[in-house]
Amino acid sequence: MNKKFVFYLLGRIAQTIGILLLLPAAVASYYQEIDQFWAFTAVAVGSLMAGTAIAYVCKTKNNVIYAKEGFAIVALSWISMSLVGALPFVISGEIPSYVDAFFETVSGFTTTGASILENVELLSRSMLFWRSFTHWVGGMGVLVFIMAIVNNISDRSIHIMRAEMPGPVVGKLVPRAKDTAKILYLIYIVMTVLEAILLFAGGMPIFDSVVHSFGTAGTGGFGIVSTSVGGYSSYCQYVIGIFMLLFGVNFNLYYLLLLGKLKNIFKSTELWAYLGIVAASVCAITINLMSMYESFAESFKHSFFQVSSVMTTTGFSTADFNLWPDFSKTVLLLLMFVGGCAGSTAGGLKVSRVVILYKMILAEIRRLLHPRSVNSVRFEGKTVEQQTLASVATYFAVYVICAAAIFLVISFEPFGFETNFSAMTATFNNIGPGFGRVGAAGSFADYSDFSTIVLSISMLLGRLEIFPLIIALSPATWKKSR
Amino acid sequence: MNKKFVFYLLGRIAQTIGILLLLPAAVASYYQEIDQFWAFTAVAVGSLMAGTAIAYVCKTKNNVIYAKEGFAIVALSWISMSLVGALPFVISGEIPSYVDAFFETVSGFTTTGASILENVELLSRSMLFWRSFTHWVGGMGVLVFIMAIVNNISDRSIHIMRAEMPGPVVGKLVPRAKDTAKILYLIYIVMTVLEAILLFAGGMPIFDSVVHSFGTAGTGGFGIVSTSVGGYSSYCQYVIGIFMLLFGVNFNLYYLLLLGKLKNIFKSTELWAYLGIVAASVCAITINLMSMYESFAESFKHSFFQVSSVMTTTGFSTADFNLWPDFSKTVLLLLMFVGGCAGSTAGGLKVSRVVILYKMILAEIRRLLHPRSVNSVRFEGKTVEQQTLASVATYFAVYVICAAAIFLVISFEPFGFETNFSAMTATFNNIGPGFGRVGAAGSFADYSDFSTIVLSISMLLGRLEIFPLIIALSPATWKKSR
Repeated sequence: MNKKFVFYLLGRIAQTIGILLLLPAAVASYYQEIDQFWAFTAVAVGSLMAGTAIAYVCKTKNNVIYAKEGFAIVALSWISMSLVGALPFVISGEIPSYVDAFFETVSGFTTTGASILENVELLSRSMLFWRSFTHWVGGMGVLVFIMAIVNNISDRSIHIMRAEMPGPVVGKLVPRAKDTAKILYLIYIVMTVLEAILLFAGGMPIFDSVVHSFGTAGTGGFGIVSTSVGGYSSYCQYVIGIFMLLFGVNFNLYYLLLLGKLKNIFKSTELWAYLGIVAASVCAITINLMSMYESFAESFKHSFFQVSSVMTTTGFSTADFNLWPDFSKTVLLLLMFVGGCAGSTAGGLKVSRVVILYKMILAEIRRLLHPRSVNSVRFEGKTVEQQTLASVATYFAVYVICAAAIFLVISFEPFGFETNFSAMTATFNNIGPGFGRVGAAGSFADYSDFSTIVLSISMLLGRLEIFPLIIALSPATWKKSR
Repeated sequence: MNKKFVFYLLGRIAQTIGILLLLPAAVASYYQEIDQFWAFTAVAVGSLMAGTAIAYVCKTKNNVIYAKEGFAIVALSWISMSLVGALPFVISGEIPSYVDAFFETVSGFTTTGASILENVELLSRSMLFWRSFTHWVGGMGVLVFIMAIVNNISDRSIHIMRAEMPGPVVGKLVPRAKDTAKILYLIYIVMTVLEAILLFAGGMPIFDSVVHSFGTAGTGGFGIVSTSVGGYSSYCQYVIGIFMLLFGVNFNLYYLLLLGKLKNIFKSTELWAYLGIVAASVCAITINLMSMYESFAESFKHSFFQVSSVMTTTGFSTADFNLWPDFSKTVLLLLMFVGGCAGSTAGGLKVSRVVILYKMILAEIRRLLHPRSVNSVRFEGKTVEQQTLASVATYFAVYVICAAAIFLVISFEPFGFETNFSAMTATFNNIGPGFGRVGAAGSFADYSDFSTIVLSISMLLGRLEIFPLIIALSPATWKKSR
């Protein structure tokens, strides 16, 4: 284990967070929120100084890292980011409990959007901004960001990228990982700005436009009022609904779009599966909701928005879907597990994994019928390697086991099956709201400190796709040095 | 597809069911239940005649079958067995609706124990006997039974055995499949008789002893009173509790026991995992229940019984566990998915699959850390073949997808999340009672005909481990002849 380099990068992360915190400080100064300004500034300066010190002490010529280091860097970065990012909430007194503030920050960075706040309207502007900004930062990944700007990271950094970016296979768009990171961030920024402009053009105040774009881009879902985006115009709701879908698409496709390779985009199995699932779910829920809403248009609007929101694991809402019929709720619950496309900012199992699992099942049926035939699984026009198949299947197993374990521990809370199960589902898949008490109109405020920490871990496990956290926290990883 | 032989065996199945129906007819005659006697006799004679005719017409020298035929035979047998077995309930008027009677019979044969009866006490003795007897027949499998007694089945019949017996790998105990089937049934009969004697010795009436032994042996769970076995003495409850555990063990181990190979038994990974999960769950629930029951002994008794009942997917109960704290209920819910050992009469995912999946996850973590190292999974002292690993992982995926699909369809019923989810869980894993309305004190009576059929399919899918049913019902299987 190249510990020195791991800590060097952690120092860099602390510096980065310090710099990022200057943004909400500026917002606080603009809105003349004095306490908040000092809280952000103090944490920013502290983080910047500590980070610089750590980076200086741990500076090393040996920047060779392997998978192990990649996992450790990513896991520790995300934990420390959240520990630091929670401080302004506590110092300003807006979220007095550090555990709650930690939950809220983890929820932000992991783009979950679950909140312990019963009344989000009580938060100051700068805190609302910081909450939504963590979505944006967490969406594409802080380490990917650092890779895009820092120079002395070797091309081994693909190990970091693999650990931080979701999906079964993380490839490089271009030969150098650094350039790949730059391209991804560029697409990300352009799309975010575009959404903000469209929202602003639709009459949404500029502050609201910006924070909702952050929340959409990261597929996070923190709103600034209790009704989420229910209070905005239909136009704004459709803009957000469509942009959620767009941010749930594999970013590699946007790169292909830039290169003009339209043909390759239309051949993407994952894209078609993703759109197919969305279309089928929207139809099913629209019909199921016809009895609740006055018109087909109304029913369709809520259905489209909520499917888009849940499938991309964003978590915005235009209606309290906790009051919808059981069937619609079950469709949403299942979509929560599917999630968006690999290589997007969305959480969940990812569409590509679901498609590969489905194809593995078909191959197994063929094998059962004709034991001696050769059965390969094809995806995106290529035969999937046996190793990748095994990884996808194993990931599915560890995913279900983690979900079961979190649900078991959360069951100590006396909130009943629906609330506890959906609290696990909504955090583990980085959605945000669930059903029952933790529904769109509720919050996670009632959970004990213990459960709040468990659910924070649940969000981190979901965002980092389990293995980095397990590997980084197992003592064996730290024992022998290579 | 060797259609002729498939139908020949279906004829044999009809004959067998006809003969088996003479047993409840005899019980009806003993208790002087005239209507019931005629109902059973009529169906028995009808089934016997129809079966003989079909077997005669379809008699063929070509008894060569492949996997495809094995799946088709098993799936069609189980469906027709249930269609025929439901008739006496309807003819006697005790369960007027044929859909309900079909559900009850499927529940019997698949050893589920879920009931649409709100008042089981209203059933006649002979019907109670038949219900429990279907458990016993379904537990070890009707086709395994036929293989044990019919002569002109080639040794290809291993394909049938593989399709009917649960677990990831079905091996032969002895070179000939026919002899394996005989040995299995002998062990099964001896253990059932032993339990009945022990119950009778503990003061349970003879009728009750016999039907409860049937229910335990098949890990079925149909009781004869609404309180299940709650009304019997602690001694009887412990006898049933222990025998449920015993019937949840891989029967191969009993064969090893007969051969005196104790060492091999103690080396069984699955056995230790099974006992370990039971022990851990009993401890957890006992502690959780301490606040509900007066003494530790009482708490332990209920906890042990319920864990044993649910883990082995039997479904007997000594208390209404629907009223237990959420944590205990969640433990039980998770155990429902695990199920008993492979090669036992229990349902669920099977302990061996869970252990193999767990070891696959460990291997994946090793691979992530050291991509070039060779990682094999060892189970029961042997390296598991890559093909078996892929099958286990794929089975897990299809299992979860089926569970999700059933849950989705059942969600049309307005009974809420807990009831619907546990109705799926309890039928798909062949447990019987779930939580909420379908809890130990409730029934499946409220479900619509549509859902009743869906849940019947759920039970069949669970008992036959999904693939036989899918393969037998897909038109492609029947198209081309080999």
